Amino acid sequence: MPKTPKKPKASASAATPSPRRAKRDGQATQARLAKLADAVVALAEKQKDPFVDIPIRALSNVSFNEKTRYIEMGDKTQRRNFFNYGQAKRFMQTVLVASKCKQLVDEDKTASIRQIYYLAKHTIKGTNEKTFDDQDESDPVLEDLEVALDSLREELHIFASNRGNLVGPITLVDSGNELDCTRMGSAGYAVPSIVEPDIIQFKKCKAKFILHVEKDTVWRRFYEDRFWEKHNCIVSHGSGQPTRGMRRLLHRMHNELKLPVYALLDCDPWGYYIYSVIKQGSINLAYESRRMAVPEAVFIGVSAFDYERYDLSDDVKLGLDSADVKRCKQILAYPWFAGKRPWEKEIKKLVRNGFKMEVEALCNKSLSFVTEEYVPAKLKDRKQWLD
Amino acid sequence: MPKTPKKPKASASAATPSPRRAKRDGQATQARLAKLADAVVALAEKQKDPFVDIPIRALSNVSFNEKTRYIEMGDKTQRRNFFNYGQAKRFMQTVLVASKCKQLVDEDKTASIRQIYYLAKHTIKGTNEKTFDDQDESDPVLEDLEVALDSLREELHIFASNRGNLVGPITLVDSGNELDCTRMGSAGYAVPSIVEPDIIQFKKCKAKFILHVEKDTVWRRFYEDRFWEKHNCIVSHGSGQPTRGMRRLLHRMHNELKLPVYALLDCDPWGYYIYSVIKQGSINLAYESRRMAVPEAVFIGVSAFDYERYDLSDDVKLGLDSADVKRCKQILAYPWFAGKRPWEKEIKKLVRNGFKMEVEALCNKSLSFVTEEYVPAKLKDRKQWLD
Repeated sequence: MPKTPKKPKASASAATPSPRRAKRDGQATQARLAKLADAVVALAEKQKDPFVDIPIRALSNVSFNEKTRYIEMGDKTQRRNFFNYGQAKRFMQTVLVASKCKQLVDEDKTASIRQIYYLAKHTIKGTNEKTFDDQDESDPVLEDLEVALDSLREELHIFASNRGNLVGPITLVDSGNELDCTRMGSAGYAVPSIVEPDIIQFKKCKAKFILHVEKDTVWRRFYEDRFWEKHNCIVSHGSGQPTRGMRRLLHRMHNELKLPVYALLDCDPWGYYIYSVIKQGSINLAYESRRMAVPEAVFIGVSAFDYERYDLSDDVKLGLDSADVKRCKQILAYPWFAGKRPWEKEIKKLVRNGFKMEVEALCNKSLSFVTEEYVPAKLKDRKQWLD
Repeated sequence: MPKTPKKPKASASAATPSPRRAKRDGQATQARLAKLADAVVALAEKQKDPFVDIPIRALSNVSFNEKTRYIEMGDKTQRRNFFNYGQAKRFMQTVLVASKCKQLVDEDKTASIRQIYYLAKHTIKGTNEKTFDDQDESDPVLEDLEVALDSLREELHIFASNRGNLVGPITLVDSGNELDCTRMGSAGYAVPSIVEPDIIQFKKCKAKFILHVEKDTVWRRFYEDRFWEKHNCIVSHGSGQPTRGMRRLLHRMHNELKLPVYALLDCDPWGYYIYSVIKQGSINLAYESRRMAVPEAVFIGVSAFDYERYDLSDDVKLGLDSADVKRCKQILAYPWFAGKRPWEKEIKKLVRNGFKMEVEALCNKSLSFVTEEYVPAKLKDRKQWLD
């Protein structure tokens, strides 16, 4: 069994569930947006050159914090001026997207990044110039705003896609609907893209831990075998790399409900990378790590050592090519893997093996081997964990 | 408003919802699998060459039935013999996969096509030969079996991915869980990959029609604006081309609950194609059309004529390239589009326009234009429908 977690405690959520979506508490975000606009207006009124300061989103301004154990942004910023030929358009775009976000928050509506692009696109009066020619221009502006305002994209009412599902003994309130996640049908509870506390509140939780698996096809085996019931846990999947919604929900459940997170991923560079993103955050979105990452997440498998450990047959082998080997080296160089003996051994063993293994391949032993033998054995034996 | 549908009638489902998954009624499938095996054994016992007859899955054996209005398979078959050097391996694989499906049905478990590959893969005794070298070998064998046994993949307990969600006034029972689909949280009810009547029963339905949209980002606009409540309908999406589960569920809701299906898709060849798959089925899986297709489905938009009709600005234009034009010609040549004046006009207009339009682009007018003006206008005016 996994280490005894601190007593799970549901977060405050006495609010009467209403069938209507709870009105968002967007005041903090509104205030930040207003402050940005006020600063621009104040400079303009003083007949000074308006500007916004945007923290730099590049590897040069990102570091791994050994104490918090996630990827953090530094404090380097870049000034974007209006009266600068090279910056004027980007300045205009920044203010424009900010005004659209303000409108979304005011109206309590949400939009996708594609929709923000179409919302903000128009011909500038008296010219043939478009505010945006392509979504490639509006996406980075939105990321600029997130960091400049210290707001999650979701707080600006922007949503991403909503892949990912879960099953298990947790009752939550989503948009006023009280949902018992053991009784949500055979695809489980669909995790939405926005899971902020004003949308989702935890009501009751009997689960002792979270098992996060990579794919829906693997999830279904755990669902059918009622693993969540036998082991009193939540089983979630992200249909590949978990979306922002799923990562944020893992983060919230881990922190608010004190649930340990165990990851079951493929034994390949991609699986290691997914683990890295769940645990430390992604490099591109380093500014979100502290609200998305789960630094205590544990990788329970599939490990390159499991081939011998679990006496698997060669039917499970998947060829490792030179691109995989290259990727392994890159991953080993990440500061959060480098210098960790177990991870160095793991990745070197994968390269030495010369083959990858998928979680699904474990069914070569028997269909329910993964739920009845493999994962229970893994949970019992900490020495097999990679942290 | 859409045409008055026949009175919605919930299908029989008096069965007490049990928290456990209802035991599958797999007897018919078991019988078909047993018949296949018996025939092989009988031939072997008579010391004759065992064989299985597999209907041919190729364009040469597919036709469009003008009466039923879906793509059908013809009756050409191919004999697969055991004592034939070129066929022996495929014969072995067919019988092997059939036995694995039998095992799944017997044990009331399901597997993905990847898992079936790993389940069936092993070294043939006394040789170095694998039963399968790659999933590319097991997938077509599975399709062979589906047609040979006249069983849907889902009846053989094989599942696909489970993309797609819906919201609306329908109460269904999924694996014993009674679910009110107006109260499933902000990502809606997650449609599972297997939606056969033994898994999902319809309990109550007040919806008058189904609006199926292409993407989850568009769906969310309809969800937030409570379109399903104002218009008393189900709003579903398939995250792109709808999966088998979503198509089968649309088919079942359309036929069992007498709900008309309206499709809202992008104005591009891909949007037309998705409509075609929902309506007539796909060419590759023609044998499943009659249990998946919805020949009465209507395409309500986005039409190439909507640019002028709804006074859209040039911000919505997306370049049409030569590959798109080529695809348009292919689609026009499909027997189910060819000769239909409205479709010919539509596709020619798209090419003449020289640009595509996404549903999301409609938010360039205003965020809720699509739910408050565009779709209501479309539903009122049959002349704008493409059938």
